[in-house]
Amino acid sequence: MNNEQLDRLFDFCREIDREKFIQRQTYLTGGEKKENDAEHAWHAALMAILLSNYSNEEIDVLKTVTMILIHDIVEIDAGDTYAYDEQAKLTQRDREEKAADRIFSLLPENECEKFRALWEEFERNDTPEAKFAHVMDNIQPMMLNDATDGKAWREHEVPLSKILKRNEITSSGSQILWDYAFEKIIKPNVEKGNIINDTD
Amino acid sequence: MNNEQLDRLFDFCREIDREKFIQRQTYLTGGEKKENDAEHAWHAALMAILLSNYSNEEIDVLKTVTMILIHDIVEIDAGDTYAYDEQAKLTQRDREEKAADRIFSLLPENECEKFRALWEEFERNDTPEAKFAHVMDNIQPMMLNDATDGKAWREHEVPLSKILKRNEITSSGSQILWDYAFEKIIKPNVEKGNIINDTD
Repeated sequence: MNNEQLDRLFDFCREIDREKFIQRQTYLTGGEKKENDAEHAWHAALMAILLSNYSNEEIDVLKTVTMILIHDIVEIDAGDTYAYDEQAKLTQRDREEKAADRIFSLLPENECEKFRALWEEFERNDTPEAKFAHVMDNIQPMMLNDATDGKAWREHEVPLSKILKRNEITSSGSQILWDYAFEKIIKPNVEKGNIINDTD
Repeated sequence: MNNEQLDRLFDFCREIDREKFIQRQTYLTGGEKKENDAEHAWHAALMAILLSNYSNEEIDVLKTVTMILIHDIVEIDAGDTYAYDEQAKLTQRDREEKAADRIFSLLPENECEKFRALWEEFERNDTPEAKFAHVMDNIQPMMLNDATDGKAWREHEVPLSKILKRNEITSSGSQILWDYAFEKIIKPNVEKGNIINDTD
């Protein structure tokens, strides 16, 4: 059997298995084990399907889910950049561009272009789908941090001002979900001292 | 803020985090670490998006992807049942029904009905989407078993006859992908002795 198209699709599918080894700073339920990128993407994609009605603007759900499923693939080469690591964020774009060049080009040309464009759209965050994907990307770890009594926030001594800064884009994707997350997750964790209140 | 709908959606989203602790028999790249259900679902969902053109029948890709993302949620309570463990398979249906009752009912009524119906459809395997979801559910671990030199097959001494039996449904979802997987994955692993040839 000679099927170059399928060979390339499977080369890519084999390669992305490595996303399961990219560790994030979020703790899973129980607070012992840290999450990896594949687990995060699965969780955020499923949340996007369940919560899509709360998007500020109408979204193409399949496009949003696809974007979420692939949004961290570049970290196979570039590594995870912690949301509040300002030093690592200086070189993040460059590292991730190089990774995208290598990994997406394993795919056949059409799929390569499509996935690359979708990842760039997520990065630019200028469409309803990208904005809602970012809501999920931010709220999923926030939910887990809350469920593990703020362990990741405490370890990194994260101040409220940084969380609010990072989540300026969250309300532009879903005002309702941002309001809900602020009331039910952020505020109680500030009160418990898990998040440092530096905004008074 | 009083939002029972969102409270229930987030209760479910928090609960399913536990899927990341359900270990499968498949080894990840490198052959050291075993895969969990969330990693498997992420991988298979992304493969469904990339390979959907190879379905025997036209499919609704978002429906298929949603089905794949949720298909193992019942294993949070019921545990993973290894594809070739005949003893465990005797009680599998009963264990998984009870799990579905508990876990999906965390959701608001509409979402509960929708997700439960989608899981039942996957189990019945009688629609184009369910059939293609099963192709991904079978081919994704097959691809990883091959990438780890058949380690899981060797450890469980899996005979070819059982693989062929389990994959009778694979060709009904995608003849092209089954033919490809047989030629490129199954046959070479039979030749290498990773899969026991009991069919001659």
